[in-house]
Amino acid sequence: MTYTPATKDQLLAIRVNAGIQELAQSEKFAAAEPDMVEAIVEGVGQFAAGEFAPLNRIGDLEGAKLENGVVRLPDGFADAYEHYVEQGWNAIASPSEFGGQGLPFTLACNVLENLGTANMAFNLLPMLSVGAIEALEHHGSEELQQKYLPDLVSGKWSGTMNLTEPQAGSDVGALRTTAKPIIDGENAGKYLIKGQKIYITWGEHELAENIIHLVLARIPDAPEGSRGISLFIVPKYHVELDGSLGPRNDLRCVSLEHKLGINASPTCVMSYGDNDECIGELVGAENRGLAAMFTMMNNARINVGNQGVQIGERATQQALDYAKERVQSARAGSPDKAAVAIVEHPDVRRMLLRMKALTEGARALLYYTAGQVDRGVLGDGLSKARGEVLTPLIKAWGTDIGIEVASIGIQVHGGMGFVEETGAAQHWRDSRIAPIYEGTNGIQAADLVTRKLGLNDGEALIGLIEDIARECTDEPALFVLAGDCAAVARWMRQDASLDDRLAGSVPFCTMLAVATAGWQLLRQLGAVQKGEAPALAKSKAATVRFFLDRVVPEAAGLKASATAGGAALYKIETDALLT
Amino acid sequence: MTYTPATKDQLLAIRVNAGIQELAQSEKFAAAEPDMVEAIVEGVGQFAAGEFAPLNRIGDLEGAKLENGVVRLPDGFADAYEHYVEQGWNAIASPSEFGGQGLPFTLACNVLENLGTANMAFNLLPMLSVGAIEALEHHGSEELQQKYLPDLVSGKWSGTMNLTEPQAGSDVGALRTTAKPIIDGENAGKYLIKGQKIYITWGEHELAENIIHLVLARIPDAPEGSRGISLFIVPKYHVELDGSLGPRNDLRCVSLEHKLGINASPTCVMSYGDNDECIGELVGAENRGLAAMFTMMNNARINVGNQGVQIGERATQQALDYAKERVQSARAGSPDKAAVAIVEHPDVRRMLLRMKALTEGARALLYYTAGQVDRGVLGDGLSKARGEVLTPLIKAWGTDIGIEVASIGIQVHGGMGFVEETGAAQHWRDSRIAPIYEGTNGIQAADLVTRKLGLNDGEALIGLIEDIARECTDEPALFVLAGDCAAVARWMRQDASLDDRLAGSVPFCTMLAVATAGWQLLRQLGAVQKGEAPALAKSKAATVRFFLDRVVPEAAGLKASATAGGAALYKIETDALLT
Repeated sequence: MTYTPATKDQLLAIRVNAGIQELAQSEKFAAAEPDMVEAIVEGVGQFAAGEFAPLNRIGDLEGAKLENGVVRLPDGFADAYEHYVEQGWNAIASPSEFGGQGLPFTLACNVLENLGTANMAFNLLPMLSVGAIEALEHHGSEELQQKYLPDLVSGKWSGTMNLTEPQAGSDVGALRTTAKPIIDGENAGKYLIKGQKIYITWGEHELAENIIHLVLARIPDAPEGSRGISLFIVPKYHVELDGSLGPRNDLRCVSLEHKLGINASPTCVMSYGDNDECIGELVGAENRGLAAMFTMMNNARINVGNQGVQIGERATQQALDYAKERVQSARAGSPDKAAVAIVEHPDVRRMLLRMKALTEGARALLYYTAGQVDRGVLGDGLSKARGEVLTPLIKAWGTDIGIEVASIGIQVHGGMGFVEETGAAQHWRDSRIAPIYEGTNGIQAADLVTRKLGLNDGEALIGLIEDIARECTDEPALFVLAGDCAAVARWMRQDASLDDRLAGSVPFCTMLAVATAGWQLLRQLGAVQKGEAPALAKSKAATVRFFLDRVVPEAAGLKASATAGGAALYKIETDALLT
Repeated sequence: MTYTPATKDQLLAIRVNAGIQELAQSEKFAAAEPDMVEAIVEGVGQFAAGEFAPLNRIGDLEGAKLENGVVRLPDGFADAYEHYVEQGWNAIASPSEFGGQGLPFTLACNVLENLGTANMAFNLLPMLSVGAIEALEHHGSEELQQKYLPDLVSGKWSGTMNLTEPQAGSDVGALRTTAKPIIDGENAGKYLIKGQKIYITWGEHELAENIIHLVLARIPDAPEGSRGISLFIVPKYHVELDGSLGPRNDLRCVSLEHKLGINASPTCVMSYGDNDECIGELVGAENRGLAAMFTMMNNARINVGNQGVQIGERATQQALDYAKERVQSARAGSPDKAAVAIVEHPDVRRMLLRMKALTEGARALLYYTAGQVDRGVLGDGLSKARGEVLTPLIKAWGTDIGIEVASIGIQVHGGMGFVEETGAAQHWRDSRIAPIYEGTNGIQAADLVTRKLGLNDGEALIGLIEDIARECTDEPALFVLAGDCAAVARWMRQDASLDDRLAGSVPFCTMLAVATAGWQLLRQLGAVQKGEAPALAKSKAATVRFFLDRVVPEAAGLKASATAGGAALYKIETDALLT
């Protein structure tokens, strides 16, 4: 299955939902003028389709393999990564003083969208590097930045995030990896790192010349829990003063997980300090590691939501191609009884339009979120807060629809969909990780109904709902849903206990995400009706109506779940659950 | 992961929803008295847990393999199948004149439920044999019955269904396999079969001594399409007059599919008549094959819906076990900040209760459906018609919730859920086939809004909705949903075009299934409150409330989709779909 970049819909979302023209009026993002934006979107789409997409199936089939401590990828991955670095795609949004292009996050999202649609597992390598760059950019000393950022920004080196340990998953504060200050010698001021980390994405490989691990660990006598965690930079190869690579650090990949999907992405168990010689450098202040990690996690969560858009796009294209080719049965009620392509059957068409509507809705939400983040960077506090409200929405709902769309894609293929050679099943398997990592979707929803609900004294969230309601007075279903969201938010703020809020968090998160996506799709429709993206005029009208008329009312059906309260969950004793 | 049979909830559903005591008052089912029922449910549960469950993981890992035309299963499968036959589990509902026990279909459902919860892929072997037995029982001549039924009923031989060909999937009428009458010689009156069939479940294996293939094919000069299809019995080994096995028939397994799940179930490409010597015998009349196949497909569809219950039960048990063991974070807002098992967190508890509520709801619907089928067999025409209305509901919704529950099961496990060793991912992979085979869920929904909507002049479907509404006047959400179902049904009968009905078929099917399941759960709750199944009192109250308060209102949210009409799907031209 080849992949055709969704360039036109991406440009529409970048213009209408992210508002790139407005961003380009700032000094910081002045380079993001229309020609540049088009060149990037078209260029990375072509690159992704040409170099990453052809490796998607072989990456799934052969996967990453650990041989004598070295992770091997199938043929083609090393070349494709080299070309990726050469063409500068890694450096889009990174600071210009370290070789980046300093463009808006919106465009970095687009680079990831294209690469990930082509090859979700491979795209995790650039995606994790972005996180390392952001952590260093915001929390590293100038010395660390000079030492590590240029080669991370170019992509010559890659980065990882090391949080999880077997006993510390969602509860990061339970981690036990230690960092002991080195007092004497050439490494004085650095730390000896010791411990094991799991689920380290692209934790070991040979595509980049060095791997820069960002590792959370505890300094001796640090406070318990999350207040006693510090962030360290731990390179695979030591970096000499002149920037050249020194000897190998005392860290290794112990094993790879055998996973349900994203098989080309090596998910490593990493061991630090087996020989008590693993050296790391502190990033930011002691015991402030979690805050630093959250800086990079915010955008990482948006990037994971982006993966839902990616898998949705890829699955939709494949299902559409199949549905246009596969001839089976006459249209019901047709007089001539001639068999037609299944795309002509009402329920198949419903499935395809649903796939398209959900994917485009998630894309609209993604770029709207990215645009708010960019405005936040430019100093707009309201947009910054809105971006924070939107982040759990795109992460949770985006990844949920990724699975749903991939599942419908299998269904469109009928029996062929269950056969691995078809490729539809891979998208579904790949999609399943996204609701889990970077904070499970349950954690996202908890974030929404705790921190985000109270942000700016509640105005951040309520303001969003008011904006939606104001612009959709002509769309009864969306107006109802916005009202439902407001009612749930009010109840959560005023009457609900913490348990009540958490018990309704996931359905509320879906409701608000659908309302926001519907609103942003409505903006797209308005722009198209005014002449924007004429090639999309017909399809956009159909998908937006599908979303507003079918997806939106479904979300309103979640209101009862959102407000059902916590007590009902605890009326049954834990022991009675298993009877 | 071990598996504990859900004996208590099964018995509750068999009593309350299938009404086994009433069935046992008939002469035909007199043997189904309480002691016998308990002995079967407990016995097969123990057998399944002891013999089928331990093979679930190895079956997934090693899968079925084709070696020189022979299908090999992992060690243990042959012994387990032998014990299954020895203990007589294959013969529960088969006619007593051929060695069966003549018990209600309800109890055959229970045998399949337990075997399939233990090992979904393995259970397909008995499940397909049931179909072959039913086809012969209802359409075979006495001679064919005498020849084939005793060993099929005992399980010494197994059976298959051969419908699909590469160009003939949902459109069975497009099949091309031929059957040429033999005029002379010892085989006069029989047919030469020639053609290739795909997706033949357990089409080749060595666990049974013979495999009886039921094959759809065309006799020369037969009418085109589905009116020209005949059903043939094609044994792997010829059966001599004395019942002993003769030489091998001219048929073979060409290859096995590499699938997303149910890896222990060999999905065969079968070739018949490579040497023009494949001999088959006609079952029923010429050109009446599809009707015969539909006889067996009706119950087969219920049996596939049953698989949703099975995977739901297995996934729920595994998630509950994990959630009780896995300690992570303190309860939000708790003063002592002590980490607790994740089952104590509100959103995890919501997930677990949802898994349980959906599974128990589907089980209630399953046994309600089975009880109606049994009443139909006893000559009750209204129940027979209701069973026909319920069949697409349990097939489609049962398999949909199977996937949903298995997906939540992964989510409860967090990162562990994405690691194959955990086993949660296998349930999800296995579950994905069920909405596809035995008629896709789209085909089920089409059946609902065409044939079933008009059955008995519409009374069959409307009567069901009226019964639900009558018994749920104290449950506002369910009452609303029943009213919504009635409104959609009325619109579909009176105002909607065929396209409109098909465009709304899938959401309507879900709405009606949820309403029926909610109603049957309400009956269970009533029975439990009157003292039935005291061990379930606490858990049933919690799961029924969860279903009524959260799942039911969600289904009402589908009403707009069910009535959105077909025109919107065709406003967009097919070519515009890909832009």
